[in-house]
Amino acid sequence: MVDRLGENEREKGLGELNGWVYDAATGAISHVFKFKNFSEAFGFMSRVALAAEQAGHHPDWSNSYNSVTVTLTTHDAGGLSARDISLAKAIDAIVA
Amino acid sequence: MVDRLGENEREKGLGELNGWVYDAATGAISHVFKFKNFSEAFGFMSRVALAAEQAGHHPDWSNSYNSVTVTLTTHDAGGLSARDISLAKAIDAIVA
Repeated sequence: MVDRLGENEREKGLGELNGWVYDAATGAISHVFKFKNFSEAFGFMSRVALAAEQAGHHPDWSNSYNSVTVTLTTHDAGGLSARDISLAKAIDAIVA
Repeated sequence: MVDRLGENEREKGLGELNGWVYDAATGAISHVFKFKNFSEAFGFMSRVALAAEQAGHHPDWSNSYNSVTVTLTTHDAGGLSARDISLAKAIDAIVA
């Protein structure tokens, strides 16, 4: 089990990320990534999939052509956990 | 440009598919695929991505762990076209 982040930890974590938005209603962070075309978008998704599998923590995400919306939360924790911040950082590093 | 299918063509096309549901409100067909885990789900997505890129026609889709929801429509045609039926058949072949 992993603990849900408290407000201070959450704010600190969000401050270390690039462009992720926290939704208090769902306890999730999300980010819409835009690419040149489907090939670039799916290339990004493939790299995120590997990072997610390595982390043992997976996104809820959708894709439409060149757009990928990634949502992260920890269902077991009932909200945002350190796992989400960690995976978001890995995703930020992929698009950096 | 590609033409939107008429009702008879649409019914004929749907009859050749396996478990796709047509939504008249959106003019799209969709199918929820379930797998053993994320690895299997993303393996399926990778094969669909290659089929989509080859066809030059791409799904709107989402994934959450072992579940992949695929939605197909042809925005240029304002609804379902032969391209959607063709890609759905390719996806059916991947999971067969």
